[in-house]
Parts: sequence; C-alpha cells; structure tokens
Amino acid sequence: MKLTINQVAQLVNGTINLPEKGEETLDKFSKIEEGKKDSLCFLANAKYEHFLYASEATAVLVNKEFKPQKKIKPVLIYVEDPYQALAKLLQFYEQASQKNSVGIHKTAIINEKTKIGKNVFIGAYAVIEAGVEIGDNCIIKAHSFIAENCKIGKGTELNTGVKVYHNSKIGKNCKIHAGTIIGSDGFGFAPKSDGTFDKIPQIGNVVIEDNVEIGSNCTIDRATMGSTLIKSGVKLDNLIQVAHNVEIGENTVIAAQTGISGSVKIGKNCMIGGQVGFAGHISIADGSKINAQSGVSKSIKEPNKSWSGTPAREFRQHYKALAMLGKIPSLINRIKKLENNQKE
Amino acid sequence: MKLTINQVAQLVNGTINLPEKGEETLDKFSKIEEGKKDSLCFLANAKYEHFLYASEATAVLVNKEFKPQKKIKPVLIYVEDPYQALAKLLQFYEQASQKNSVGIHKTAIINEKTKIGKNVFIGAYAVIEAGVEIGDNCIIKAHSFIAENCKIGKGTELNTGVKVYHNSKIGKNCKIHAGTIIGSDGFGFAPKSDGTFDKIPQIGNVVIEDNVEIGSNCTIDRATMGSTLIKSGVKLDNLIQVAHNVEIGENTVIAAQTGISGSVKIGKNCMIGGQVGFAGHISIADGSKINAQSGVSKSIKEPNKSWSGTPAREFRQHYKALAMLGKIPSLINRIKKLENNQKE
Amino acid sequence: MKLTINQVAQLVNGTINLPEKGEETLDKFSKIEEGKKDSLCFLANAKYEHFLYASEATAVLVNKEFKPQKKIKPVLIYVEDPYQALAKLLQFYEQASQKNSVGIHKTAIINEKTKIGKNVFIGAYAVIEAGVEIGDNCIIKAHSFIAENCKIGKGTELNTGVKVYHNSKIGKNCKIHAGTIIGSDGFGFAPKSDGTFDKIPQIGNVVIEDNVEIGSNCTIDRATMGSTLIKSGVKLDNLIQVAHNVEIGENTVIAAQTGISGSVKIGKNCMIGGQVGFAGHISIADGSKINAQSGVSKSIKEPNKSWSGTPAREFRQHYKALAMLGKIPSLINRIKKLENNQKE
Repeated sequence: MKLTINQVAQLVNGTINLPEKGEETLDKFSKIEEGKKDSLCFLANAKYEHFLYASEATAVLVNKEFKPQKKIKPVLIYVEDPYQALAKLLQFYEQASQKNSVGIHKTAIINEKTKIGKNVFIGAYAVIEAGVEIGDNCIIKAHSFIAENCKIGKGTELNTGVKVYHNSKIGKNCKIHAGTIIGSDGFGFAPKSDGTFDKIPQIGNVVIEDNVEIGSNCTIDRATMGSTLIKSGVKLDNLIQVAHNVEIGENTVIAAQTGISGSVKIGKNCMIGGQVGFAGHISIADGSKINAQSGVSKSIKEPNKSWSGTPAREFRQHYKALAMLGKIPSLINRIKKLENNQKE
Repeated sequence: MKLTINQVAQLVNGTINLPEKGEETLDKFSKIEEGKKDSLCFLANAKYEHFLYASEATAVLVNKEFKPQKKIKPVLIYVEDPYQALAKLLQFYEQASQKNSVGIHKTAIINEKTKIGKNVFIGAYAVIEAGVEIGDNCIIKAHSFIAENCKIGKGTELNTGVKVYHNSKIGKNCKIHAGTIIGSDGFGFAPKSDGTFDKIPQIGNVVIEDNVEIGSNCTIDRATMGSTLIKSGVKLDNLIQVAHNVEIGENTVIAAQTGISGSVKIGKNCMIGGQVGFAGHISIADGSKINAQSGVSKSIKEPNKSWSGTPAREFRQHYKALAMLGKIPSLINRIKKLENNQKE
Repeated sequence: MKLTINQVAQLVNGTINLPEKGEETLDKFSKIEEGKKDSLCFLANAKYEHFLYASEATAVLVNKEFKPQKKIKPVLIYVEDPYQALAKLLQFYEQASQKNSVGIHKTAIINEKTKIGKNVFIGAYAVIEAGVEIGDNCIIKAHSFIAENCKIGKGTELNTGVKVYHNSKIGKNCKIHAGTIIGSDGFGFAPKSDGTFDKIPQIGNVVIEDNVEIGSNCTIDRATMGSTLIKSGVKLDNLIQVAHNVEIGENTVIAAQTGISGSVKIGKNCMIGGQVGFAGHISIADGSKINAQSGVSKSIKEPNKSWSGTPAREFRQHYKALAMLGKIPSLINRIKKLENNQKE
C-alpha cells in the first residue's frame, strides 16, 4: 500500500482536518497504540482514545463527530463509521495484494462424476467425491474433503482441512475456516432397557446459505431428518457446536465456543456472545442479544432484548438479582438490630 | 424407501389405528412439523404434539398409550417406544441405501509392518504407520492418520481426518467422527523455581472399548502412565475434552463441549449435559445426571442423582438456592416494615 | 527401561530409605494405584497417599519431608519435588526409547522457494508453501499444512494435521498438537444499516515465541493488524480459543476449552483453569489465578490474586457471596419470628 491521505479520504468518503497535509503518504495500517510515521490508524472505541494523544501515526480515521481533547500529531480523516471505513480500506488492500489462485493441483483427487466451475482453485491432496458440484471462482484449499453429492456455490472458500460430509449444501460467497467439520452425525441415540443405546441414523443434511462465514474447528451436525439450516449472512466464530436440526436466522452473529443443542431455532439479527449454551428444542426471537457464558434454557419470545446468566434472564433482571446477593450482609445487620430492640 | 404402512408396522412390531389404510405407501421420513403426503413421521416429545393435528403426513409413529385430542389425518402406528422404533427404521433404511465401501485407495500409505483385516476400506491419503492392526470390516476414511502400534477392532469407522497417536487401542464397532484427535499428550508440566515448566512426558495411552461413538473435533488425551479409558457403549458428542488418565464408565452419554479434567473417574450409565466441567481427580457415581453448564468440583458419591450449577449441587437444592435469590426483595420490604413498627 | 533403585536415585538427586535394597531393579513406571513388582511410582498429591500403604510397587518417589503413617512395602526415594523428579525420569525414558525420525517423505509437497534446516522430519502428505523457513531438527508430521512465508524455529514439532496460515511465526522448541489451527482470520465484521456485515480483512499475523506448547484442536486467530502474540514458555491445553490481537505473557498456563476474546492482554505466570471466558479488550495482571469456568469481564489490575465466578470476583469474596445464599432461609425464619413478636 502506498496512498496519500487524500486518496484514502476519497476511498472512504471522508474529509480531513488539515487539507494542507493531504499529500503526505501512508504505507501501512497499524493499531493506534502502535502507530508510527507513515501509518494509518483508526479510532472506533473510546477506550483507546488516550493512545491518539501520544500517537506518531501520520493519519487516523475517526468518527465525524469526534473532537480531540488535547493536541495531536496525526491528521484526522473524518468518516461516518471508522470501523466500516477500515473494512473498506482493508478489503481494498487485500484485493490489491492478493494473487489470483486458480488451478487444480495435480494431487487433488476429483471423482469424474463432479461438476467443477470456472476459475476454481483446488489445493494439494484435496479429495472430492462423486456427485459434487463446485461453482465458479471457488477456492478449496489443501487437505479438504468434500463427500458425495455436496453442492458448493460460486465464490465460496474452504480453507485447509475443512471436511464436508455427504449431501451438504453450501451457498455462494461463504468462507469456512480450517478444520471445520460440516455434516457429521447428529447426536441421537435411543436408550434400551439394558442401558445401552440404539443409534438413530442421521439421514438429513446441512444447508448453509450465502455469505456465511464460519471460523476454525467448528462442528455443524447434519439433521436427523430434514436439514440443519444456517441462513444468509450468518457469522460464526471458532469452536462453535451446532447440533442436528438447528436453524440460525439471517445475519445472526455468534462468538466462539458457543453450543447450540438439537432443534433450536435462533432468529435473525441476533448477537450471541462466546461460550453461551442453548438447551434443545427452544426458539430465540429475532434481534436477541445473549451475553457471553449465558445458559438459555427456555424460549425467548420478545424480540430485541438482552439476556444474561444461567438460567438466562432479561439483562436488567439478571444484574438486579446479582446485586441482591450483595445486600444480604446489611439485611443480617438490620435483623440483628430489630431482634435486639425487641429484647429490650 | 418404498414401504406400506403395514410393512412398517411389522418392522417395528406395531399396530395401526386404521387397518383399512394399511396398504398406503410411505416413501420418506419427515419431521412431524414438515410431514407431507407419503411421509412417515414420529412423535416422541409431547412438545411437538400440536403439529400432529395439522399434519399432512401419511403415517406417524406414536406411543401405544397415545390418544389424540383432536381429529387427525395421519394413520397412527402404535409402538412401545417411538424413538426406538424410529432408530430401527432408519437403520433399516440406511443399510438398504448404503453402498458397500471396500478397498484400499492407491494413495493410502500403509507401512508394510501392519495387519489389515478383510473387507476393509481405507480412503485417499490416509497414513498408517508400522505395527498397526486393523480388524475386518473397518472403514478408515480419507486423510486419517494412525500412528505406530495402534489397534483398531472389527467394524470400527474412523471418519475423514481423524488422527490417532501411537499405541492407542480402539475396540469393535466404534464410530469416530471427523477431526477428532485420540492420544495427544496429556497436559502435564512440573513448575520450576524460575517460573518455567518441565514437560512431563506422557508415556501412557488411550484405550477405547467396543460400541463407542465419538463426535467431531473432540480431543482425548493419552495417560501420563497407564491408560485413559473409555468403556463400552459410551457416546460422546462434539468438541469434548477428555484429559489424561480419565476413565468413563459403560454407556455414559456426554453432550457437546464438556470438559473432563485429569484423572476423573465417571461411572457407568451417567447422562452429562453440554458445556459441563469436571475438576481433576474426582469420582462421579454411576447413573449421575449432570445438567448442562454445571461445574462439578467435588466427587459425587450417591448414585442416580441429578446435579446442577457451579459448584454443582443436588438438583433440588440448586433450584431452591436460585429461588432464594428471588425472595430478597420481599425480605427487604418485611424488614422495612418491622423497622417502621418499632419506631412508632 | 531397566534401572536399579540406586541408579534412579542418582538421576533425580535423591536418597533412599532402605539402602540395602538399592540394587533391586525397576522396569516400568506405574500410577501408585496400579503399582506392581518392579514398578516405580510417585506420590505428589496427598489424596493418593492411601494407595501407598497397599502398594506392591518396588519403589516410590516421595517428597523428602514425607513420613509414612503405616507400614509400607515399597522403597522410598526422597527427592526435593517428586513431580519434577518424575518429569526428569520420564524425559530420560522418552529420549532413550525415541527413534530418531529424520527425513522428508517423498509425498511431502515442498515449494522450492523454502529454506529447510538440517535433520528435519517432514511427514507424508505435508504441504509447505513458498517463502517458508523451517529450522534445524524440526518435526513436521503427516498432513500438516504450512502456508506462505511462515517461519518455524529450531527443534519445533507440529503434530499431524496442524494447519498454519500465512505469515505466522513460531519460535524454537515449541510443540503444537494435532488439529490445531494457527493464524485463521480474527472475527471482525463491521455492521451495515441493512443488518448485514462487511468483513474486516485480517491482515496481521500470529507470533508464537520459544518453548510454547499448544494442545489439540486449538484455534489461534491472526491479528486484524499487528500480531496475536503468545510469549515464551506459555502452555495451552486442548480446544482453546485465542482471538485476534490477544497477547499472552511468559509462562502462563491455560487449561482446556478456555476462550480469550479479542485484544485481551494476559500477564505472565498466570494460571488459568478450564472453560474460563475473557471479555474483549481487558488486561489481566501478572500471576493471576483464575478458577475454572470463571467469566472475567473486567481488567484485573492487582497481581498474584485468585479469581472465581461469573462475573469473576476475588476468590474469597466469591465464596462469601455463595455462602450468603445459604443464609437466606434462616433470615426468613428470623423475620417471621420478629413479625410474630410485633403482633403480640
């Protein structure tokens, strides 16, 4: 990257506080606490504002309402939303620096009964079974495995070591990170009178719609019957468990290590923290916010509320209850006083 | 699948409410909420009963005691246990539709000092080291790795990308899902006075008995000395951590993302929810039920009890304690009243 | 192994209680509860002392202050620290029994623009991309993937199926267990007004210093900008999530299934239990001890304290609060009594 401050401002539809410095050049992105000469930084979280005042960075993306409280060195580039402006610039940078990986490695094993689109990359030692269809511009990295009859939409990327079980369907422009398993058996066993179990074969599949991103080492189980369904725009972090017959609504975002039990339906536009657990067979309303480590044991019917704790309660109720615990010592004292008064 | 209702009833030892419809055909399994014409559904959870009354399915497996509360369309097939009947039918279906995968892919690397049984399938790019023994009818899928001196019993299946460290022993008819790691080093380090650690080499192994199923991306560590032991019939879901020297008793079932610390002994026939944690060096009595997200910090000596919370307490105690929290506001009011009365 | 008691005592700088038995031979390590004739056991945890009195083992490593309370059969080898003595002996044993694995398997795909050191082992079907540098004596096992421009220091071992994304740097004498993913994208998305998200490309990397051990199926995300940093001597157990821009200080030890959110800074010499969660953008003081399943939502500024619970509180406060819950029933009784007295 080698851009002037003016060029950056133009790319992100921003304005600058010191137009006379607009031709200074920027040659790297830095975190604000590490910004040096020629760096472009961003300030999106007020917690980091104090770093601005000591920063040697050449320019910093800030919200258009931002007013520095002290003298600063960097040029400010005012934008609507610094985080989104950063996204745009980093995408621009990434596209410029990316090589166009296309071609099928000679060690990839691709069954002849497959349909592979144009401009596809398939890496070393990938294995693709019969009946698979892969759309144009897909990237399937080394050591990936795609079992029979899977469909993968255009522009989707499977990173190294992703394993996709038979009959899974993945939409367009998805990104699946290394080591994630899609379509393994749901956890279903019928107890028998002698204490052992009969396995319930899992004959359903996994359906992932478009623009979904899934982190590393996640596990997305196939449905017992029907489909485990991850809708458009969903973003999953790493090490997440999605059980059989789960449905996750559009644009819901889930942080790492959360576990979703069988047949749970999560609405759209939810924000779910890390290490949350959902009990089986419940529904979560659209726009729900669930704090990290919560345990959600019942359906959430009212949309757009925040929830916390185990069992999860509406946010303010949860904190009220926690605060109650702190009041007990003073209650003990007040009771003691009452008792003493009565004795007199 | 293409069976008449009578044929299905016969397979599961059931009876039907409308014998005159016994020759209608069924050609797919569906969830009850999605059942259409020609579908066979099942009703095992009362929560889903309302779907029955709107269902277009041709037949539904129900408990022999079940009495519909409204008019219904589907034929009812009465059985002892609908979930187990479903298991039986799905197993029948799966066996009918399964191709017989046998043969060793030419890219599989198999050390010559190995014993490979009859009718074995070994997939592309699998690697099998010296001293390994694999029983008849095993399925070892692509990208699996089996290190030196492992033994794998008859009829066991390792899905794609399973990694088995040296000296592990896996019994008969086990199923290990993709990405699971068996036999990696236990987490043992001896602290030194300068703050660094000496690694304790982990010279034990992992022993898995017969009929065990393990989900995707689990980690089962080898013992420091002796064996980490998973007994017959145990079922583990995805992303479960089993530390060194753990022992899990027969037919115990553990849901996803649970973590078991070193040297824990879990009894037989336990049911353990998701995201549970066990502190090291404790024992859990046979038949214990541990609710999701519990933190078990002490041994459980009494068998067949339910436990909840962190630290885990007997189920009713836990919920009593939670309820207590809700009583504090009313206590505050009562104390206030007492105080006002005294003042008068 | 075949050593006399005297030889063992010499190796660990110990003394024995029965010098006349010093020439008896030991030929295996056992856990104290399984010790038989010719076994060497160790006793480091008082919880296991009762096994000593029934043990048939030939010798047992104990702390030099240890005094048996009953008659025992085994010879005692007194040492400063039995656990560390065990580490030393097991390392000695492991070195003696280890074959020297060196050489590059013919199926490993190694780009020609790489620098590979001396005495390196690279296993079957490993893939190593352009610009990678691997130091002397490294072990890179089968199915590993090392993307462009990674650097791996001398003596480091990647077990089977480890995946390392581009530009990662791993120091000397590290050990990374099977299935761990290093350098996958951090979880960063900028929300848009229509509910969808713009991906923030993650252009930073992962830097792991020397003597770090990482368990199986962990996920260590690359930084958005700059580096996710794991400092010298850190030990991570299995299934741990380390988000983008996290920093973990020297010799900090973290148990399985813990999750660390973005930009968290953990100090050095911390001990962190399993299934702990850290909220984003906080700092944890050096020497902090965090109990299993805690949820740390705020920075910890005072070093060398113990923390517990969600939200995490200083250890004693947490247990005091838990105890308070138990007092409520007696408070209710006391209030009832006060009320009755007032009525009279």
